[in-house]
Amino acid sequence: MTRTSRQVNLASRPNGAPVRENFAVVEAEVSAPGEGDIVVANRFMSVDPYMRGRMNDVRSYIPPFQIGQPLDGGAVGEVIESNSPDIAVGDHVVHGLGWREIAVLPAAHAQPAAQVEGVSLSANLGVLGMPGMTAYAGLVEVASFQEGDAVFVSGAAGAVGSLVGQLAKKKGASLVVGSAGTDAKVAWLTEELGFDAAFNYKNGSVGKQLGSAAPDGIDVYFDNVGGDHLQAAIHALKPHGRVALCGAISMYNNTEPAPGPNNLTLAIGKRLNLRGFIVSDHAHMRGDFVREVGGWLADGTITAQETVMQGIDSAAEAFIGLLDGANTGKMVVEL
Amino acid sequence: MTRTSRQVNLASRPNGAPVRENFAVVEAEVSAPGEGDIVVANRFMSVDPYMRGRMNDVRSYIPPFQIGQPLDGGAVGEVIESNSPDIAVGDHVVHGLGWREIAVLPAAHAQPAAQVEGVSLSANLGVLGMPGMTAYAGLVEVASFQEGDAVFVSGAAGAVGSLVGQLAKKKGASLVVGSAGTDAKVAWLTEELGFDAAFNYKNGSVGKQLGSAAPDGIDVYFDNVGGDHLQAAIHALKPHGRVALCGAISMYNNTEPAPGPNNLTLAIGKRLNLRGFIVSDHAHMRGDFVREVGGWLADGTITAQETVMQGIDSAAEAFIGLLDGANTGKMVVEL
Repeated sequence: MTRTSRQVNLASRPNGAPVRENFAVVEAEVSAPGEGDIVVANRFMSVDPYMRGRMNDVRSYIPPFQIGQPLDGGAVGEVIESNSPDIAVGDHVVHGLGWREIAVLPAAHAQPAAQVEGVSLSANLGVLGMPGMTAYAGLVEVASFQEGDAVFVSGAAGAVGSLVGQLAKKKGASLVVGSAGTDAKVAWLTEELGFDAAFNYKNGSVGKQLGSAAPDGIDVYFDNVGGDHLQAAIHALKPHGRVALCGAISMYNNTEPAPGPNNLTLAIGKRLNLRGFIVSDHAHMRGDFVREVGGWLADGTITAQETVMQGIDSAAEAFIGLLDGANTGKMVVEL
Repeated sequence: MTRTSRQVNLASRPNGAPVRENFAVVEAEVSAPGEGDIVVANRFMSVDPYMRGRMNDVRSYIPPFQIGQPLDGGAVGEVIESNSPDIAVGDHVVHGLGWREIAVLPAAHAQPAAQVEGVSLSANLGVLGMPGMTAYAGLVEVASFQEGDAVFVSGAAGAVGSLVGQLAKKKGASLVVGSAGTDAKVAWLTEELGFDAAFNYKNGSVGKQLGSAAPDGIDVYFDNVGGDHLQAAIHALKPHGRVALCGAISMYNNTEPAPGPNNLTLAIGKRLNLRGFIVSDHAHMRGDFVREVGGWLADGTITAQETVMQGIDSAAEAFIGLLDGANTGKMVVEL
């Protein structure tokens, strides 16, 4: 039986902010599954900020996307054919071949999807998946969060940031401050997610707004944004403060290198520790993560909002919108 | 008995690079020693880059110098009067009241000077003192140096940098690269100190010269300089690379904030760790430091060069020259 699947190819490399013309939805024949392979009908696919970097032709920790080839990324779906004794037809799995409706892959490259009552399967791409784990590992391990710490997180209404703030509250932060790019998101952070304070970075200086929200300074900065957010955080950090460098979404669409923080020298006297990380280095924390976050999600004390776009034709729009802050919580595409 | 001592006062705060007029040598009456105090005839006083920060009226990890008051800093000298049972007249001690010929201080604020045969007492201000300990703690603890690491150190002909490179070689670095500001210093690094490679940062792009010296990248960068050195190092660092942020001498005389590294975002994918530190946080390493470095100094396998200026009237010149790279090895003033 020959199947076809619609998929999203990289039509051209973005120059600055990506546009629709950089993406092409094409119908392609699906290769027959080999020994040990499974065929998955994707239910949800993920769009994540890190994918922007892969659209440039530069070496990084993962190879760049290739023009004329399908994009890939996190997805969750139902197994519709299996040549593996380990996975049955009807199982739901998480895997790395998103940006397409049907995926063929070795069973060993798929993980069983977590299913929490009352929680959408798509949570496997967000709060229970890579972004959730990123928040968890970044806060707990990279930033060495300690009870009583004052925490600032940028991109706080995003998939990672919204969990960072909630985790910090759960784990006894003395103060949790978030920044976001709309007044509605700011209200959501304080009214729904329990942030102590939040501000709209488009409403004024990040430094001044952070200074007002955390007049005694911060111990931890979880950076999803880079740029002036990082500079303001370095100013606000107390001695022995820690920065988890997770993302720099403000800079991903830059076509020229942007100056770094002009106050990095403060890191010496304050003994700051700035640590870049990628989530895959912290897989050993997965058990703790699923137990803690899964439990809080099940009992409703953690909120996991999603922005859901419909159909593979909206995938490019979802990704473009993600980089422009169109999402509240995790941005996913339902296929 | 009333004594007088010449001392160097801060006459005015430098605006940019310090000039002679910012300093005033004055004769002042020495207060009588109280119970538990000692009186020290300083033999050598230290000038160190960190003192530049204290000449600005800004809060940092140590308070700023005050106009019209004497500067202070590391010194070593001979006890000429003692009201303490712990220290005898004739003892040599290290203490924090430099920039003056005679110091009165509580015995508890002084440490016995280390005496290594064939090594000047002034080594207590350099290789066996604060700068040496800075090199040791920064390399071993802050940068988590491991055998086989490729190491780059800037300001490599300075008191700290020259020891960093030698220590790294001693401890099994696969490659040690240093930068300095004159061809003579560069030759000294490779010919006398055993650096594998060195370059004059004034002769061309730091990034290109570092790339040539360490084509496979570096694991550790020991930063004494900041600015374009830090940016070049971030580019050259391998995954999981570490940066000890020790100083930023290229920026100390800036009157306006200078842009930070424009590639700090690379720290995410490379999982870099940038850590600022000050030596006093690492006092627990002092025993190991004295044993290791003292041993290598005694057996002649570590070189500790000094640039010695004569007399308190030359102290301002010594400090001004230090910031301009006039020294090879530790800059001290003999009193």
